[in-house]
Amino acid sequence: MGALRPWARYGLLAVAHLLALGLGATVLQALEGPPALRLQANLRAELATFQAEFGACLPAGALEELLGTALVAQAHGVSSLGNGSEARNWDLPSALLFTASLLTTTGYGHMAPLSAGGKAFCVAYAALGLPASLALVAALRHCLVPLLSRPGAWVATCWQLTPPRAALLQAVALGLLVVGVFVLLPALVLWDVQGNCSLLEAIYFCFSSLSTIGLGDLLPGHGSGLHPVLYHLCQFALLGYLLLGLLAMLLTVETFSELPQVRAMVKFFGSSGPVNAEDEGAILGQDELALSNMPPSAAAPAQAPAC
Amino acid sequence: MGALRPWARYGLLAVAHLLALGLGATVLQALEGPPALRLQANLRAELATFQAEFGACLPAGALEELLGTALVAQAHGVSSLGNGSEARNWDLPSALLFTASLLTTTGYGHMAPLSAGGKAFCVAYAALGLPASLALVAALRHCLVPLLSRPGAWVATCWQLTPPRAALLQAVALGLLVVGVFVLLPALVLWDVQGNCSLLEAIYFCFSSLSTIGLGDLLPGHGSGLHPVLYHLCQFALLGYLLLGLLAMLLTVETFSELPQVRAMVKFFGSSGPVNAEDEGAILGQDELALSNMPPSAAAPAQAPAC
Repeated sequence: MGALRPWARYGLLAVAHLLALGLGATVLQALEGPPALRLQANLRAELATFQAEFGACLPAGALEELLGTALVAQAHGVSSLGNGSEARNWDLPSALLFTASLLTTTGYGHMAPLSAGGKAFCVAYAALGLPASLALVAALRHCLVPLLSRPGAWVATCWQLTPPRAALLQAVALGLLVVGVFVLLPALVLWDVQGNCSLLEAIYFCFSSLSTIGLGDLLPGHGSGLHPVLYHLCQFALLGYLLLGLLAMLLTVETFSELPQVRAMVKFFGSSGPVNAEDEGAILGQDELALSNMPPSAAAPAQAPAC
Repeated sequence: MGALRPWARYGLLAVAHLLALGLGATVLQALEGPPALRLQANLRAELATFQAEFGACLPAGALEELLGTALVAQAHGVSSLGNGSEARNWDLPSALLFTASLLTTTGYGHMAPLSAGGKAFCVAYAALGLPASLALVAALRHCLVPLLSRPGAWVATCWQLTPPRAALLQAVALGLLVVGVFVLLPALVLWDVQGNCSLLEAIYFCFSSLSTIGLGDLLPGHGSGLHPVLYHLCQFALLGYLLLGLLAMLLTVETFSELPQVRAMVKFFGSSGPVNAEDEGAILGQDELALSNMPPSAAAPAQAPAC
C-alpha cells in the first residue's frame, strides 16, 4: 500500500467503501427481501379479502382514499387508531424529543413538521443549533478527555505497560463500559419494561439511537396506549438517554481516534507529507502526548503531498 | 465568563443547551400543534363518515384491523397502495440507499428491517462500518483540507490580509460554495423535477439529508409511481448526493472548526489548563499552522485543570 501513489490509495479506499456498501446491500436484500414480499402479499390478500367481502357496499376508491389519508397522516406521526387517550402529538415532551432528535441529528421521523413554517423553522433551528452543539461537545471534550486518560496513566505505571498499550487498553475499557452502560443496560431495561419487543429489538433501538442513525421504526412507548403520564416519563427518559448516551459515545470515539495505533493506520492511508511535531499534535492533545511517545510513523514515506 | 470556575461554565453551557432545546420545542409546538390536530380531526372525520356510510356492511373492527395492517406495513416501507408497478422494496438500488443511510447515519427510515436477522445484521454492519467510514473521512481530510487551504494562502498574499482573516474568509467562502452546490442547487433541481413539492420542501429535504438528521418524511420519487428505471435513477442520484454532499459538509465543518476564532471561542468556554504548542496543534494541522499565527489564547487563565 505504501508503494502506491496517494491518489491510487484514496481511489482504492473509496472503491473499498463502495464495495462495502454494495456488500451490505446484497446481504440485506437477501435477508429482508422475502419478509417484505410476504408482508406485501399478506397486505394485498387482506385488502382483496376486504374488498371481496364488503366491496359491494363500498363505492370504488372509497377505501383507497381512506387508506391514503391514514397513511399520509401516519407519515407525520398522526395516529388514526386509538381513542385519543394517548398524549397529543405536539405536546411539550414530544416536541422536546423532536428538537433533541434534530440537534443530535438522530432524526427518528416518527413526528415530522406539517406546515411550511414548521419546516422552515426546523432548517433554521438545526442550521444554528448543530454548530452550537458541536461547539458544546468540543468544550466538554477539553474537560472530560483528560479526566478519562488518568486511569490509563495509572494503569501504565502500575502494570508497567508501554504508553501505547495503556492507551489502547484504556480505550477498549472505555468502549466496553459505554456499550455496557448505554446500550446493553438500557436495552435490558427496555426489554423488561416494554412487553412487545425482543432483546434484539431493544439493542437495535439503543444502537440506532446512539449512532444517530435513528431509523425510527421502533420507538418505546409509542402507540402502545400508555397512560399519558407514563408516556411522558418514557419520553423524558428517552431524551435524557439520547443526550447523555451521545455524549458518552462521542467521548469514546474521540478517545479511540487519538490512539497512536489508529493515528498510524490513518496516516498509512492518508497524506504522505513530512511528518513533524505539529502534525503529531494534530490529534494528540496535551495529556495524551504524555501517554503515547510513539515516534512519527515510519510507514508513511516522505513524499511531497500530491493528491 | 472568565471569572467563573470551569464547572460553573460547563453548567451554564449545559443549561443554555437545554434552554435552547426547550425554546425550539415551544416554537415547534406553536407552529405544528394546530396543523397536527387539524390533520387528526380530518382523519377522524373521514373515518367516522366512512363508518357511518358503510359501517352497516362491515363487521366491528374489520376496518381497524385492515388499517392497522396497512400502517404497520408502511412503517417498514411496504406500500399498500399502487398496483405494484413501483420497484420492489429491497431491490438492489433501494438496499444500497438503505446501507448508505446506515453508514452516513442519516437513517431515513422509509425502509426498515423486518426480520430479526436483518436487524442484527444492521447493528453489526453499522458497528463495523461507522468506524471505517470515520477513518475513511479522516484519511480524505488529510489530503483535501490542505488543498482547500491553498486559495486562502493565495488570497492572504494578494489582498494582504492577516492570516486569521484570510482563514475566516476562506471558510466562509467554502461554506457558501458548499451550501450553494449541495443544498440550493439540488433543491432547485428537485423542485423542478418533482412536481408535488415546494422549493421550501426541497431545501428542507436537502438540508435534512446533509445534516444526517434524515427525518425521512419526504423522499424524492418515493411513492410517486414512477417508471422503475426512472425510480432507480432517482435512487442512484440520491445515493451519490448523500455520499458526496456529506463529504463536502464534513470538510466544511472541519475547516470552520480549525479557524483561530472558533478555537478561541471553544477555549474560552473550555478547560483552562496550560496552553502550549501541542494543545494548539490539537486542531491546527500542518498547513493551517502556516496560515494562522495567533498566539495561544490569552482568554484562558492559567489554572490547573479542575472540572
